[in-house]
Amino acid sequence: MSASIEDVARAASVSVATVSRALRGLPNVAPSTRARVLAAASELRYVADPHASRLAARRSLTVGLALPMIGTWYHAKLFSGVEAVVAATGYDVLPFTMTGTGGVDRFLEDLPFRKRVDGLVVVDAPLHPDQLGRLVGAGVALVTLGLRCEQAPSITLDNRAAARLAVSHLTGLGHRRIAIIGGVPDDPFRFSAPVDRHRGYVDALSAAGITPDPALAVPGNFSLEGGAEAMQRLLGASDPPTAVFACSDEMAIGAMQVARDAGLRVPGDLSMVGFDDHDVSAYLGLTTIRQDVTGQGERAAQLLLGLLAPTGGGGAVTVHEVAPTRLLVRHTTGPPPHPTDQFD
Amino acid sequence: MSASIEDVARAASVSVATVSRALRGLPNVAPSTRARVLAAASELRYVADPHASRLAARRSLTVGLALPMIGTWYHAKLFSGVEAVVAATGYDVLPFTMTGTGGVDRFLEDLPFRKRVDGLVVVDAPLHPDQLGRLVGAGVALVTLGLRCEQAPSITLDNRAAARLAVSHLTGLGHRRIAIIGGVPDDPFRFSAPVDRHRGYVDALSAAGITPDPALAVPGNFSLEGGAEAMQRLLGASDPPTAVFACSDEMAIGAMQVARDAGLRVPGDLSMVGFDDHDVSAYLGLTTIRQDVTGQGERAAQLLLGLLAPTGGGGAVTVHEVAPTRLLVRHTTGPPPHPTDQFD
Repeated sequence: MSASIEDVARAASVSVATVSRALRGLPNVAPSTRARVLAAASELRYVADPHASRLAARRSLTVGLALPMIGTWYHAKLFSGVEAVVAATGYDVLPFTMTGTGGVDRFLEDLPFRKRVDGLVVVDAPLHPDQLGRLVGAGVALVTLGLRCEQAPSITLDNRAAARLAVSHLTGLGHRRIAIIGGVPDDPFRFSAPVDRHRGYVDALSAAGITPDPALAVPGNFSLEGGAEAMQRLLGASDPPTAVFACSDEMAIGAMQVARDAGLRVPGDLSMVGFDDHDVSAYLGLTTIRQDVTGQGERAAQLLLGLLAPTGGGGAVTVHEVAPTRLLVRHTTGPPPHPTDQFD
Repeated sequence: MSASIEDVARAASVSVATVSRALRGLPNVAPSTRARVLAAASELRYVADPHASRLAARRSLTVGLALPMIGTWYHAKLFSGVEAVVAATGYDVLPFTMTGTGGVDRFLEDLPFRKRVDGLVVVDAPLHPDQLGRLVGAGVALVTLGLRCEQAPSITLDNRAAARLAVSHLTGLGHRRIAIIGGVPDDPFRFSAPVDRHRGYVDALSAAGITPDPALAVPGNFSLEGGAEAMQRLLGASDPPTAVFACSDEMAIGAMQVARDAGLRVPGDLSMVGFDDHDVSAYLGLTTIRQDVTGQGERAAQLLLGLLAPTGGGGAVTVHEVAPTRLLVRHTTGPPPHPTDQFD
């Protein structure tokens, strides 16, 4: 009963090949022709089987996006950046999350069996460069974000330099007791960002002649709740900090509220610097390190589409880009309440 | 050179059908057998073509999620809820965003030609119930969120009752000049939520004997920036409000900052109620209407998987669920600065 592709071709007065190209959204079909084919297919209730047509095209027209989770601000912004660029080309984005125990192993194990994607953007995955290299070797067009291997284009931050900048801002204001709210002690994801940001914190302290106090380095799990709990711990210290560098804005927001609930003025009694420039941070006056997360997603998608382009990939040099960061001084940082005596 | 499925079957000492089932993640394969098949396939570097195997299965094992955008807090939370439930069953989630002009028309036009999904969750789409009904009639397993048609299960809020609750809280505190920061005047998406929340606002005012003042109803575009701009307009009014009901927490946060920058104390000079219970709202002490967005995504996915289950769908009654909302009174609402004289 159902119409065949030949029926559609006859009704639209074009060749079967043109119907096929038009329905698959391939180039070299005039818009008016495509409209005529779609109208005929719709009229005849012709339903192409996309798995069959994608088999024929030997392309899935799908880009995979592997990321640890979807619901956080950071990952949602990345996702929207990737999606905006990819969708404009007619590709779909298929997310793979690596939540739960064994998420990454499952991802790597399943990937060869689900060649539904033409290429893959891998974000913040706890993958060893060797594992990434093997993916490239297996023919996966790959771009990484927040991590890198030699064989694939990448976008990363200079987290160490950015953290150094944030903490130098605090030492420059005269703070000596500066805490860091960072990642997770035994991070199952083994992200490098918290490690590198801690290094930058130590760099800045050392440059100001301050010995890092382990009691002032507390984990915050990159969440609002984690930031709040970390601040509780810091306020309970025998010699509490006058300033805090939180490795994400969400941790900074959670920490600030706990400080204010304890009667501290920000920045009068406690200065706070975050990291990210979360959408709400401008409205909270939070001093922070800005990164353009959506822009990084867009750029990763562009690099991947470049690899997938008929002319791209092959001979091109693999690029490793460092996305810019900068310090935005707003209203949560100021001099310490009892400035340390300073001598020239 | 590449291994065949028969080679894998021989190496794993199982039938070809079992290899096929194991690689496609279908049930009725013992975990130990699946592990042996995966090991053999990996050893032999056998790569199943998922389009071919999905063709054979006559199922794509993919659920579509149609939503206006991805990068906002609300949509990211919904997405993560849907994804968590769907991924646990071995399905993938393929998002379709309807951004840009003609996004919805393109979605409807393309859908019949991309039967890559077994089912579809449609979120907040500006689709007429007739359009949704036609999708169901065309055989699409459908669940809607934030909108409904008779033929498909849905999850919605009672936006009118929730808004009435929020604004009654303000009238109960003695406020008479109450503004609403709502949607967009000529909303291209024609969402019903802002319309229904405005109705609830009018209900609550009427119940308190207050005539709505059109000058106190301003659009805020459901964004931080929009909320800030709306508050600027309200502060410029000849008789500014003493309280604001913002139809989203993000608009409330943007509005509060503008009020504070103008020297107003919240809630001393201005009370603020939001809607959503955004992650940061607890940390800002924002009084708001709570809804569980992630939970709604999870529930929508469960309803869809129910439709897709071999035993499901067919004879079952189509359910229309109303997700719960409640008022959370925190620290941004209080009596008006100059209480209206009240007589018993």
